[in-house]
Amino acid sequence: VSPQRQLRGSAEDRLIARYFGPLAKHPGALGLADDAATITPPPGCDLVLKTDGVISGVHFFPDDPADLVAKKALRMNLSDLAAKGAKPLGFLLAIALPKDLAEVWLADFARGLGEDAEYYDCPLLGGDTDRTPGPTAVSIMAFGTLPHGTMVRRNGAKAGDRVIVTGTIGDAALGLRLRQGSAAANNWGLGERLRDNLLDRYLLPQPRNEVAEILRGYASAAMDVSDGLVGDLSKLCHASKVSADIECQRVPLSEAARKVLTGDPGVMETILTGGDDYEIIATVTPAKQRALTTAAQAVGVPITEIGEVTAGDGDARFIGAQGNPLAFARPSFSHF
Amino acid sequence: VSPQRQLRGSAEDRLIARYFGPLAKHPGALGLADDAATITPPPGCDLVLKTDGVISGVHFFPDDPADLVAKKALRMNLSDLAAKGAKPLGFLLAIALPKDLAEVWLADFARGLGEDAEYYDCPLLGGDTDRTPGPTAVSIMAFGTLPHGTMVRRNGAKAGDRVIVTGTIGDAALGLRLRQGSAAANNWGLGERLRDNLLDRYLLPQPRNEVAEILRGYASAAMDVSDGLVGDLSKLCHASKVSADIECQRVPLSEAARKVLTGDPGVMETILTGGDDYEIIATVTPAKQRALTTAAQAVGVPITEIGEVTAGDGDARFIGAQGNPLAFARPSFSHF
Repeated sequence: VSPQRQLRGSAEDRLIARYFGPLAKHPGALGLADDAATITPPPGCDLVLKTDGVISGVHFFPDDPADLVAKKALRMNLSDLAAKGAKPLGFLLAIALPKDLAEVWLADFARGLGEDAEYYDCPLLGGDTDRTPGPTAVSIMAFGTLPHGTMVRRNGAKAGDRVIVTGTIGDAALGLRLRQGSAAANNWGLGERLRDNLLDRYLLPQPRNEVAEILRGYASAAMDVSDGLVGDLSKLCHASKVSADIECQRVPLSEAARKVLTGDPGVMETILTGGDDYEIIATVTPAKQRALTTAAQAVGVPITEIGEVTAGDGDARFIGAQGNPLAFARPSFSHF
Repeated sequence: VSPQRQLRGSAEDRLIARYFGPLAKHPGALGLADDAATITPPPGCDLVLKTDGVISGVHFFPDDPADLVAKKALRMNLSDLAAKGAKPLGFLLAIALPKDLAEVWLADFARGLGEDAEYYDCPLLGGDTDRTPGPTAVSIMAFGTLPHGTMVRRNGAKAGDRVIVTGTIGDAALGLRLRQGSAAANNWGLGERLRDNLLDRYLLPQPRNEVAEILRGYASAAMDVSDGLVGDLSKLCHASKVSADIECQRVPLSEAARKVLTGDPGVMETILTGGDDYEIIATVTPAKQRALTTAAQAVGVPITEIGEVTAGDGDARFIGAQGNPLAFARPSFSHF
């Protein structure tokens, strides 16, 4: 392969103008018609910067709907902004497209991206489009704002804090098993509704941006749960130089996950370590716990206490129904 | 290919900590140990945002030295910041690595990136590392700052302005021809020194960050020359709703390019349209031209006037030695 530049000078500009230009509604995007974007940060605010992305065949299936691929890529980043307490400001997009990719894929991708940019009030500010001999790859760089010095860190948990989590854990990991058509998953005996619940959780994350400000007000530490509850809580404990004791029975599960677990208790490991939850795990002092929970419920986000922070050296211990600590073969999933 | 998550939980964290952690010297990078970075924008400043990247086999050769791949990826973005008048603040890195990539490649890449982050005072703030079944791909998102409202745009050129360019044009495009070992290039009869000059210009851009503040003070419009002088000037004219008349004989050429051109006049098109120059093209009113030129020369950046802006509709006309307008088969190069 030789990096000789190719000759259809305006094709990239045409694609950008056609599909991404309409998304560039922020004045600082300059209609994607300059070399760079410019933003005026709100006075007194810090910016929160995050980049995460997806690659076809690694993070999504090649036949996943393109609009949902776009939304997942953006929402993965929005989930981090939420966990850090930041309000979305905008994002940059870098996308690499195989030569044989149908243009309708790009049209669907841009439509989905535009819908979410609008919904989350997080406009496209700029980007980079390239052809690749490899698979479709999408990188998002998202920016958020929050009052100076208020970013919620991983490292603020203290012994005695309660560990809380939003929503339900494990649905996306089970949805992935279904999507992969594994023999075990086919025996779960879920009806269509519960099956769709799990598949949807895998396909389209629902980041918890409603609680960003609440976390800033009350949480001592927070992060989003994207690589599995066990591994992510371990990272939080490690950063905070504490340990945590979690009661597995208190980990919030959906109706579908509970049904799967009843028939196949071995999936507990998948639930706790599978990733793609895009929920938030946080720690909070007992004095602030009720206020946090009440405020989150007021914006429609369920909060469940699952354990507590202890003095220690970075161990996230998950305790089973009989008081036994669980050992995991794979505490956290990684693409490496 | 199935997007099943893989099982070596800490490998990504280990790679990041080992190779990129030492680069994260900005306090807001939080040692790459949190979910996101945070920066406090300087009061009264706007941020300039840019993303650009390189893919192996598309923008660089698979056997290019990894430290230079890193530098090129960062410098492409720094060149845009320079053209917009912005001072580098920091960057995010998204990198996709093939499974079979030797770890020494990553070590060299990180070393080169660190050297340039230091040299350009543009620290690594955060990033995303993934495995890919495709070629190595690097995306950089660079941030710069400038006083509120002072970003140098493409759209400010007015009839009567002079068109100026930094440095010399066409060297990188000729260097690419040499790198490709084309038959024509082998007949150029360059000695080793001139040959290396051209190869170096292709391999390692030298962005013009020294003139960022000067452009802000004096230029009516500017952009960096990355996709070829002809196409990039056309974009500037189009954005400014003007035309431009350029005298090809005034386009500044290096000793090597002049020698190639003497033996092979047909390479003028390569020189003017080939791209990867990472020089800056700008427009300036006659009243400010001397001040701009003097200030740029004082920081070691040669400035050459190559033509003037005229009333018109986005045409960049390049006039040959006999007063004839040149027609280009390929006004601008693109990967599409």
